[in-house]
Amino acid sequence: MSTMREMANAVRFLSIDAVQQARSGHPGAPMGMADFTVALWTRHLRHNPLNPGWWNRDRFVLSNGHASMLLYSMLHLTGYDLSIEDIKQFRQLGSRTAGHPEYRHTPGVETTTGPLGQGIANAVGMALAETMLAAQFNTPEFKLIDHFTYVVMGDGCMMEGLSHEACSLAGSLKLGKLIALYDDNGISIDGAVTPWFSDNTPARFAAYGWHVIADVDGHDPDAVDAAIAAAKAVTDKPSLICCKTIIGYGSPTLCGSEKCHGAPLGDDEIARTRAELGWPHPPFCVPEEIYAAMDARPDGRGHEDAWNELFEAYTTAHPELAAALSRRMHGGLPADFQELAASLVREMNLLEKPVASRKSSQMCLDALAPHLPELVGGSADLAESNCTHWKGAVHFRPDAPTGTSVNYGVREFAMAAIMNGLALHGGVLPFGGTFLVFSDYMRNAMRMSALMGLRVIYVLTHDSIGVGEDGPTHQPVEHVSSLRLIPNLAVWRPADAAETAAAWTWALAQESAPSALCLTRQNLAPLVREGAALANLDKGGYVLLDAADGGDPQVLLMATGSEVMLAVRAARQLADEGVRVRVVSMPCLELFDAQPRSYKDAVLPPAVTRRLAVEAGATGLWHKYVGSDGAVIGMDRYGLSAPADKLFPEFGITVERIVALAREML
Amino acid sequence: MSTMREMANAVRFLSIDAVQQARSGHPGAPMGMADFTVALWTRHLRHNPLNPGWWNRDRFVLSNGHASMLLYSMLHLTGYDLSIEDIKQFRQLGSRTAGHPEYRHTPGVETTTGPLGQGIANAVGMALAETMLAAQFNTPEFKLIDHFTYVVMGDGCMMEGLSHEACSLAGSLKLGKLIALYDDNGISIDGAVTPWFSDNTPARFAAYGWHVIADVDGHDPDAVDAAIAAAKAVTDKPSLICCKTIIGYGSPTLCGSEKCHGAPLGDDEIARTRAELGWPHPPFCVPEEIYAAMDARPDGRGHEDAWNELFEAYTTAHPELAAALSRRMHGGLPADFQELAASLVREMNLLEKPVASRKSSQMCLDALAPHLPELVGGSADLAESNCTHWKGAVHFRPDAPTGTSVNYGVREFAMAAIMNGLALHGGVLPFGGTFLVFSDYMRNAMRMSALMGLRVIYVLTHDSIGVGEDGPTHQPVEHVSSLRLIPNLAVWRPADAAETAAAWTWALAQESAPSALCLTRQNLAPLVREGAALANLDKGGYVLLDAADGGDPQVLLMATGSEVMLAVRAARQLADEGVRVRVVSMPCLELFDAQPRSYKDAVLPPAVTRRLAVEAGATGLWHKYVGSDGAVIGMDRYGLSAPADKLFPEFGITVERIVALAREML
Repeated sequence: MSTMREMANAVRFLSIDAVQQARSGHPGAPMGMADFTVALWTRHLRHNPLNPGWWNRDRFVLSNGHASMLLYSMLHLTGYDLSIEDIKQFRQLGSRTAGHPEYRHTPGVETTTGPLGQGIANAVGMALAETMLAAQFNTPEFKLIDHFTYVVMGDGCMMEGLSHEACSLAGSLKLGKLIALYDDNGISIDGAVTPWFSDNTPARFAAYGWHVIADVDGHDPDAVDAAIAAAKAVTDKPSLICCKTIIGYGSPTLCGSEKCHGAPLGDDEIARTRAELGWPHPPFCVPEEIYAAMDARPDGRGHEDAWNELFEAYTTAHPELAAALSRRMHGGLPADFQELAASLVREMNLLEKPVASRKSSQMCLDALAPHLPELVGGSADLAESNCTHWKGAVHFRPDAPTGTSVNYGVREFAMAAIMNGLALHGGVLPFGGTFLVFSDYMRNAMRMSALMGLRVIYVLTHDSIGVGEDGPTHQPVEHVSSLRLIPNLAVWRPADAAETAAAWTWALAQESAPSALCLTRQNLAPLVREGAALANLDKGGYVLLDAADGGDPQVLLMATGSEVMLAVRAARQLADEGVRVRVVSMPCLELFDAQPRSYKDAVLPPAVTRRLAVEAGATGLWHKYVGSDGAVIGMDRYGLSAPADKLFPEFGITVERIVALAREML
Repeated sequence: MSTMREMANAVRFLSIDAVQQARSGHPGAPMGMADFTVALWTRHLRHNPLNPGWWNRDRFVLSNGHASMLLYSMLHLTGYDLSIEDIKQFRQLGSRTAGHPEYRHTPGVETTTGPLGQGIANAVGMALAETMLAAQFNTPEFKLIDHFTYVVMGDGCMMEGLSHEACSLAGSLKLGKLIALYDDNGISIDGAVTPWFSDNTPARFAAYGWHVIADVDGHDPDAVDAAIAAAKAVTDKPSLICCKTIIGYGSPTLCGSEKCHGAPLGDDEIARTRAELGWPHPPFCVPEEIYAAMDARPDGRGHEDAWNELFEAYTTAHPELAAALSRRMHGGLPADFQELAASLVREMNLLEKPVASRKSSQMCLDALAPHLPELVGGSADLAESNCTHWKGAVHFRPDAPTGTSVNYGVREFAMAAIMNGLALHGGVLPFGGTFLVFSDYMRNAMRMSALMGLRVIYVLTHDSIGVGEDGPTHQPVEHVSSLRLIPNLAVWRPADAAETAAAWTWALAQESAPSALCLTRQNLAPLVREGAALANLDKGGYVLLDAADGGDPQVLLMATGSEVMLAVRAARQLADEGVRVRVVSMPCLELFDAQPRSYKDAVLPPAVTRRLAVEAGATGLWHKYVGSDGAVIGMDRYGLSAPADKLFPEFGITVERIVALAREML
């Protein structure tokens, strides 16, 4: 039978040889982590390579994603649908073995990693989802949802601030089934880390309330095995296992040095490493007995079969719970959702009093949440300001694990990355709030939501100088536009309660894209809509108001959010002067762009070149819509600290200015 | 004589009453922090209200910037140029007392704070600058640079990941003259923090190698005084003083509750608080004896006078050092800088072999750094990839404090915020590198550089799908454009070595704006320039190549960075077909936008409407330049993991496509 060391060496040489063949990649980390990862996967990880989507599998997250060949090697060797030919294609165009692990791209990859710190935060989200679902669905007889979340992290993850946010919160939430293995090799890209990273990491994690197992020899599988067993036994705290390792373990010349971190070892050193580790096999050849020893399919099938039996019995005993779990794990919405959505939009369209869009957002939540138990909301310590705590919401607490409203604390980045983990786990549908200006703090996690195609909803309130007195540090200027630039992120800036409802219901229905809802602090007047306008709310842009005589408009006004009401007032004033004006509300530019050309041309007729866009933010992206002859009223400078009603005039975002500019065009 | 408590109450009521008058603001934190802040300012802080710019003053940073009234009260009471009328104008348009403290706006405000966590990181930068300057300029006889950096931080700062990054690094760098006071009131906006923030903070900071003084009664000035004295005595570790306080101290009904965090107390509660604290004075009236007791001008003048004498003697003893320090503290460049810059650009323009712009950036550094000892460089653990470690650079270490190359570790956000602190301190000129895609991690600190108008240079390499195999997590798509949206940030994407030199020398000369240099990993062919082109490099956009016959162009190609060479090749091909093509290189759009209309029209003649822009990134912002009839070749989707030379064709960013689209236009 193959030894643990032989299995680890198989991982090492697949990694070494794939990187060498690609002439690019990171061999050092897989070589250093092979021993403890093999110990984890062969002795603890409950998974089924034949079904990477099995709901109750243990999750495994490689937070230091540059060590992708470690994961690909494990997936290949344990029987996932990832062939040796795939391994040989590492980092090539169209291959299944991308430079960093990519979710939806490679079977068995639980999350896309590479941007450091995010994997550990994703893992916190997965462990949180597991805890919530277990509390909601398990019964005394049925432990249906019951798995661990394992995460491997390196020095880079430990240095990133995100690891502080996520791990501090995980400690407070007592996520006992989260087990992190720290690849403590003391090397980062710039070299031996001590001069710039000298934390006592075990003490740091103990300070977070974690169960810490320090000083484990990461090259001793039995020691690691015992540590994991100890970690599993502590269920009221997350566990950190500190594995002392040597980067590039086995490379006689390069081990223990940053030189083996991010470049192929080279043929000579690979030959020396083969000799050192006693691995006589040519590249990409793994002895059959190692394959046999590592094949996780038989056990995996057994685990899943047993669980399927359990689920069958559960379905008999608790048919409604089983159906709900099934719907939620499949990501489907309730059968009546479309109806619910349409009626909510209609109802919000009838509102007659001014209301801030953050408030109408909360009204949407109040209406929808009772129908969507999968919603997991929260805020980065701004629940009341963001209006994210809906009626009847219960806070998630260690002693109230059925709660679905999360206090993330002042931790925007962790909130976003944890929401990604929640969405990745499945069974829950996360949304979370902060001030729009602080989307900066979590921007790369929002990008990861979009890159992975996750249904995560960002509630971003206080969306302009409308913030008022808090001043320029709190007034977003460039943020709406800069979020629009992130591919596959839908950015909504609704103009009133009806558009807010359209945004919410549209966002909830997107199975593979995140949405950002940019909402006001200040009140918005309800808009009056004709039938067509109401029907087109979910097209991203639509004709809100047209010339009374139905003739071709002379001037096109377009706007979003709080500026739509200014455009409407300006249009009325111009209409009084006999000007034919059309007002187009553009709550979601990406969605409008995705409409057929015929629709877009009907809304923005190419013949009408007198176009004026109004948005209390950066102007740059609007030139695409107003064209060479158009103009944009916006803000390409920072705001000021003053009451909001003083600021709009100060920056020339007024009805008068719209009217004046439109007149100039005529 | 006034008691410490009376002085603290003066701070409390100025804060309470100013917030009440503004009907907005944060009274709770100033009320809670007044006692320990008064202890710090009256018994330890060495500053001179008559000269807030005195080089050797102690720095005081309010990291929890929402407590701005605390700082304004202290500035007012100790004699800064901030009158009671200014206090009454808190949060009003045009006042000197903005909602959050703003650098350059209010005398005595050392940095703009509000976005949590950044103040503590700024303070780390200030303490680092002090250490470096002391090492470079002090002599055994002259302790010229010798001050403390004090920072106050709240629970929010403690939760933010940035505090981990900055404080972990401060520990490793042993910044002994950094003293942080933690306002440990256990309340954040969502309420009592324990359920979501249960860190053992003293243990956490001890794990960073800090000197921690736990369990200090923050309302006992003598206890705080003693703790500060103890902190000052430990010079080989930064110190954290944990001050237990009660938010809203003195308010009978609201103290200890989040309800007094972000809203006025209200008239009734203010009356009760006056009674509770025994403060009979009407709003904005502070007894003269308290003013007299708190006036820091006599002592401040004394401190500065003594220091000025020291500096005079130093100037006599070390005239060159004194001149160098003076030049650097005033932010001036060496007298021959313009000449040096011009010669560097000329020299780089003569380079004949292809070179990546990250490499030509390093060549610039190698050439400039010997003339600019104020340069403080570094990288977030990517020194070799970012090419930020110049020839002869010495790493800053606790035992090598004259070093000016900083290993920031994998801490992008801290790097940026620390660079802000370095620039704020003065005497140093910071630049720092990471991959462009990870600008996301530090985006809000980049915004703060721009908002404060700080000379900070961001070296952002691996600027497109040219990254290649690392794949979409590491390939910026939207980043160049999204950085362009940040007001007052100059974003350069140079096309060859000469443009890189222009970017560097331009950036170094900006006294009140940060710059981002977006640089390639892959080689760029050197461009051939005529005289005018070379002269216009620093205009942000210029005619690189024109139709040979000098006639009006039929087609305008514009591009940046690595795509300029594609545009040039396409232009040559089109010229061979008899098409008159102009190629415009646009390395810095903001700078081009700032040129006079006549120059812009000369470069982009309005009559030429056949325009094609090429940039391997988001297309949205280019419509402003190509107009309604133009087109953009770019990327509005994520990249892929593959060698770079496979990716440009995959995404249609090729000479062939440029030629084809240009032909279509004709």
